[in-house]
Amino acid sequence: MSTPPLNIVVIGGSAAGPKAAAKARRMDEHANITIIQKEADLSMASCGYPYYVGGVFDDRNQLICTSAGIVRDPNFFNAAKRIEAKVLTEAVAIDRNTKTVTCKHVPTGELTTLAYDKLVIATGASALYPPIAGADLSGIYTLHSLGDADAIRAIRDQKQATRAVVVGGGLIGFEVCEALHLAGIHTTVIEKMPSILPFLDHDLALLVANHVRSFDADIITGNGVAAFLGDNGAITGVKLDNGTELPCQLAVVAVGVRPNIALAQAAGLDIGAAGGIAVNEFMQTSDPDIYAAGDCVECTSLITGEKVRAPYGDIANLQGRVIGQNLIAEGSAKFPGITHTGICKIFDYTVGFTGLSATRALALGLDIETVMIAGLDIPPYMQGKLLISKMIADRKSGRVLGFQCIGPGDASKRVATVAMALRGQLTVTDLVNADLPYAPPYSMALDHVITAAQALENKLLGRMQGISVAEVKQRVDHGADCFIIDTRTPAEFEELRLGIGEVLIPQGALRSRLHELPQDKSKEIIVYCRVSLRGYEVAAILQGHGWNNVKVMEGGIAAWPYSREK
Amino acid sequence: MSTPPLNIVVIGGSAAGPKAAAKARRMDEHANITIIQKEADLSMASCGYPYYVGGVFDDRNQLICTSAGIVRDPNFFNAAKRIEAKVLTEAVAIDRNTKTVTCKHVPTGELTTLAYDKLVIATGASALYPPIAGADLSGIYTLHSLGDADAIRAIRDQKQATRAVVVGGGLIGFEVCEALHLAGIHTTVIEKMPSILPFLDHDLALLVANHVRSFDADIITGNGVAAFLGDNGAITGVKLDNGTELPCQLAVVAVGVRPNIALAQAAGLDIGAAGGIAVNEFMQTSDPDIYAAGDCVECTSLITGEKVRAPYGDIANLQGRVIGQNLIAEGSAKFPGITHTGICKIFDYTVGFTGLSATRALALGLDIETVMIAGLDIPPYMQGKLLISKMIADRKSGRVLGFQCIGPGDASKRVATVAMALRGQLTVTDLVNADLPYAPPYSMALDHVITAAQALENKLLGRMQGISVAEVKQRVDHGADCFIIDTRTPAEFEELRLGIGEVLIPQGALRSRLHELPQDKSKEIIVYCRVSLRGYEVAAILQGHGWNNVKVMEGGIAAWPYSREK
Ligand SMILES: Cc1cc2nc3c(=O)[nH]c(=O)nc-3n(C[C@H](O)[C@H](O)[C@H](O)COP(=O)(O)OP(=O)(O)OC[C@H]3O[C@@H](n4cnc5c(N)ncnc54)[C@H](O)[C@@H]3O)c2cc1C
Ligand SMILES: Cc1cc2nc3c(=O)[nH]c(=O)nc-3n(C[C@H](O)[C@H](O)[C@H](O)COP(=O)(O)OP(=O)(O)OC[C@H]3O[C@@H](n4cnc5c(N)ncnc54)[C@H](O)[C@@H]3O)c2cc1C
Ligand SMILES: CC(C)(COP(=O)(O)OP(=O)(O)OC[C@H]1O[C@@H](n2cnc3c(N)ncnc32)[C@H](O)[C@@H]1OP(=O)(O)O)[C@@H](O)C(=O)NCCC(=O)NCCS
Ligand SMILES: CC(C)(COP(=O)(O)OP(=O)(O)OC[C@H]1O[C@@H](n2cnc3c(N)ncnc32)[C@H](O)[C@@H]1OP(=O)(O)O)[C@@H](O)C(=O)NCCC(=O)NCCS
Ligand SMILES: [Ca+2]
Ligand SMILES: [Ca+2]
Repeated sequence: MSTPPLNIVVIGGSAAGPKAAAKARRMDEHANITIIQKEADLSMASCGYPYYVGGVFDDRNQLICTSAGIVRDPNFFNAAKRIEAKVLTEAVAIDRNTKTVTCKHVPTGELTTLAYDKLVIATGASALYPPIAGADLSGIYTLHSLGDADAIRAIRDQKQATRAVVVGGGLIGFEVCEALHLAGIHTTVIEKMPSILPFLDHDLALLVANHVRSFDADIITGNGVAAFLGDNGAITGVKLDNGTELPCQLAVVAVGVRPNIALAQAAGLDIGAAGGIAVNEFMQTSDPDIYAAGDCVECTSLITGEKVRAPYGDIANLQGRVIGQNLIAEGSAKFPGITHTGICKIFDYTVGFTGLSATRALALGLDIETVMIAGLDIPPYMQGKLLISKMIADRKSGRVLGFQCIGPGDASKRVATVAMALRGQLTVTDLVNADLPYAPPYSMALDHVITAAQALENKLLGRMQGISVAEVKQRVDHGADCFIIDTRTPAEFEELRLGIGEVLIPQGALRSRLHELPQDKSKEIIVYCRVSLRGYEVAAILQGHGWNNVKVMEGGIAAWPYSREK
Repeated sequence: MSTPPLNIVVIGGSAAGPKAAAKARRMDEHANITIIQKEADLSMASCGYPYYVGGVFDDRNQLICTSAGIVRDPNFFNAAKRIEAKVLTEAVAIDRNTKTVTCKHVPTGELTTLAYDKLVIATGASALYPPIAGADLSGIYTLHSLGDADAIRAIRDQKQATRAVVVGGGLIGFEVCEALHLAGIHTTVIEKMPSILPFLDHDLALLVANHVRSFDADIITGNGVAAFLGDNGAITGVKLDNGTELPCQLAVVAVGVRPNIALAQAAGLDIGAAGGIAVNEFMQTSDPDIYAAGDCVECTSLITGEKVRAPYGDIANLQGRVIGQNLIAEGSAKFPGITHTGICKIFDYTVGFTGLSATRALALGLDIETVMIAGLDIPPYMQGKLLISKMIADRKSGRVLGFQCIGPGDASKRVATVAMALRGQLTVTDLVNADLPYAPPYSMALDHVITAAQALENKLLGRMQGISVAEVKQRVDHGADCFIIDTRTPAEFEELRLGIGEVLIPQGALRSRLHELPQDKSKEIIVYCRVSLRGYEVAAILQGHGWNNVKVMEGGIAAWPYSREK
């Protein structure tokens, strides 16, 4: 070739950066590609840190190696990908006029200058660290870098700490909580907001919280950390906003991340309203020779059309790959946007979500309908496990806008399924008749996703009137005048019951016991069963007999997060 | 209400029939609903028979009960759903003029006549039973009814049979094979066609066959059963078309099903070209007062637009539910069609599929591109398991047309994900950037589905040239003049290798060993590794250095179904 090789410089060496570099290499064997990485390691699977910390595996190198077991160090990048990876090197300035990046070798402070034709900014994000008194005590960590993981893992291995506090009840907070629990450390998660896991609606978040508390782990919500308490420079506890003090030898702060935009900002690149570097669908910044991807950018929500930050490992890789193509063949690849899809394991629950929560949709002023259901992932005879889900749709168009799914069952499959439905802008009616892979080891004859869509369709069509467990609890607490029916069998009632003034009328006995129901056909009647399938059928029967204010308690007892009589 | 209650008669009491009846009841508490069921049982989870036969559970009632454990017998239907279920009652004629059904009580032969306003035909299908000599011997079964399941389960429990033959290598054939294997019976599956599992392309079918053979079970393909051999009226073996004789004390015939259309045909209803009762999207037959659903009908393929039969339990339920609505509110619900999605468990493999196989697409004259890949479902540090997949797309539009996924990994999730993508008519490019739920316990950072789409996109864009394992085998067997490179590490090569004349050039060493490659830049070079990820990268490097005939052996060693040197 007569044209000189392209000079590509990539700032950031974890997910988005190496992905862009690797893809550019596959597109062009002759470009010069350099990765600038501040830290000592490259290509870290950050998402795996909690599992390393918790002892799910012991070899740290597993976090930075290929599926074939080769560690992705500078030698690997050089040999396998002919990419020069400069580690312990920080990019300190971008000069867009001279098209150069000034780099500092971290150990020596030595400055060098690298010229680029095309530049990639993949500086990621930094863990937020709220300005709390006592934050300089030892024993307080974030879990953001591999160094952090090493440090917390060492605490696990030393077996000294017995009590820990996790500040922040988001995804990473709970992954850390579980990891510390596995390490034998009693852990309390402190969340300032009234609800944990902000992408979940409150009703589902309560159920997850109950699950966590069923292990030897605790959660405090609606209460922030006012101060870290210490002795001899080491943490000994935390003091909460309400004055409570909790002893601990370890605190992990996991209150979210802030995009690393300083370099981009100093270089005069546009920053978006959501606080990330602004990019177009080619992942190009306001300077056409500079691309950006990953935790440091914002991108389009395919659900709302807004610009949002999506600090997720999969998104960083997808965006990096788009850049890799555009570096070599400008304008050849687009990143369309995200559907807000994520997941995490919290003890024996999977907690997954895609699209908007009801809370978020309402905050956006959308006119939505929602449904909450419970059911098994596979048949009882195959040892099916419980799933509890909420599906959200636009009331007019019926377009599915969101789905949350939690429980011991296989929620991951259901969330992936609905994520793809969102991607295809499918409606509830499309999902109602979806042809999914059915066999008893893998799903119910009608998969949980289909059942959720059916129940939502029933609500949209006015065939089912729902009431949330929270509303029922409120009714009960305020002594509201409503008639509550548990529609299960006497045996089930003996074993477990809510005790909220309910009358037991098994579904099969209902038609012969209609005289026991309120004479006033417009009186509010609330029905439920274990998951509110029989409850729903009873509601249909009662409606058929003229009662016109019958509400199904959505999700049934399985979705009831409050205390029970039995 | 002043209008008299609607008379609804449903013929067939397993999946589609009861579903239509149950949904109609929820739509209208006052209709008279009667189910006519030939067999003694109702609402049988036929799909669970293999697991009952294999001893996964022991209580037969689990096949006919609700999630709450209530057996769906006529009492249940009466009490819970106010549906009259007449069991051991066969519908023997439909008179469309008088709108009546003639029923025969099976034990007594007594005939009665039932009047209907609306009729549902859900007569299902019957197991095909090829006219083979000796078919009247005892010890020969199908697994279609609950009675069949009882009988084969009894053989398991008696522990007398040691050798069995399964005639037919489809879904049910292999489920039976596994069940008999679990029962300690050595089983051979006989398939007349050259390939098992007709919905799979041959390359994937071979891998499944290898997996089955790795257990104490055998498969014979391209050879039919010519005769059942017997002694004293009991089966002692089978004789194959090629003369081979196999001893056995048990044979299970599973060569497919034939829709039960006799009643409909005799009543003069239209039968479609695919052999099922013809229905429109409301599931209405050529008589607007008669609906039909399930294994006895044909419906629309959303992929090809053709009318097809889809004898699956999920489809029967979906269609039944559509009828339930239309019975009460005519024209209120549509069944759009199917996407050919199915799955089964075969020993430790999951075998799933959606859309068209390559074979089928080519037979339809479609211009397609395909790719085969292998990879893990979740990261190695989380104990990821192998998946092997084939994705098929329309070459011009890029629309995804099909996906097959097999292996010990979680194929069920991937098939559900792509099934939904097919439903949304998504393209390969849409899938390439899908926002799926990522966390290490649930997927790779870029899920297997995304990787498959990326590889397919690479082929569509001419960035990767592929070659199938079958073509490579052919090249090797014919001593073709090509240069074959294994791109793994020496350690991997020591442990396991194909021995097809390959040269070991680890990916990381390639650039310094380019002189070892053929001088002739247009010489065919075939590269692979364990899964052909590194193989693909090596191909990109070679292309960058001017070799223009470099092919990646798709799926790598993981997809190689033939014998290996080591
Ligand atoms: C504990 C934990 C668990 C997670 N779990 C999940 C999960 O389950 N699923 C999921 O989707 N996501 C998860 N994430 C998020 C995911 O890891 C990130 O979204 C992803 O790593 C972002 O990739 P990135 O390349 O944009 O940024 P980063 O991974 O943050 O990488 C940026 C790199 O750039 C370097 N850098 C920054 N500035 C400079 C500079 N000026 N010069 C040189 N180098 C610089 C940094 O040192 C860093 O290594 C998790 C994150 C953590 C910490
Ligand atoms: C062993 C086995 C495993 C399977 N595995 C799967 C699987 O994993 N996934 C999947 O999707 N599908 C599977 N299937 C297929 C699934 O079971 C069928 O698609 C489903 O049962 C069809 O439902 P249906 O109601 O249309 O017909 P059927 O279930 O066949 O029911 C029809 C009923 O009608 C009755 N009947 C017929 N004629 C008359 C008459 N004239 N009068 C009165 N009654 C009549 C019959 O006795 C029968 O009970 C499997 C089937 C079998 C046998
Ligand atoms: C690994 C990393 C360096 C990217 O390198 P990469 O070479 O692009 O990634 P992989 O080794 O997975 O190779 C992927 C390529 O092989 C292809 N491929 C994968 N399996 C294949 C198979 N079986 N057959 C053919 N091609 C295959 C993919 O399509 C992709 O190619 P493309 O992008 O050109 O389409 C970067 O993602 C990284 O650093 N990751 C670790 C950190 C991280 O992701 N953290 C966040 C989450 S924890
Ligand atoms: C069970 C059978 C009789 C159908 O009866 P059914 O009452 O429609 O089925 P279910 O008991 O599952 O009830 C489903 C209803 O409850 C609703 N539902 C389920 N879970 C719910 C929940 N947690 N909250 C609210 N509604 C719920 C569903 O949406 C559906 O209502 P809809 O159709 O009005 O939308 C029929 O499917 C059958 O006989 N099945 C067994 C045989 C079979 O399927 N074989 C083939 C596969 S092996
Ligand atoms: Ca995601
Ligand atoms: Ca299906």
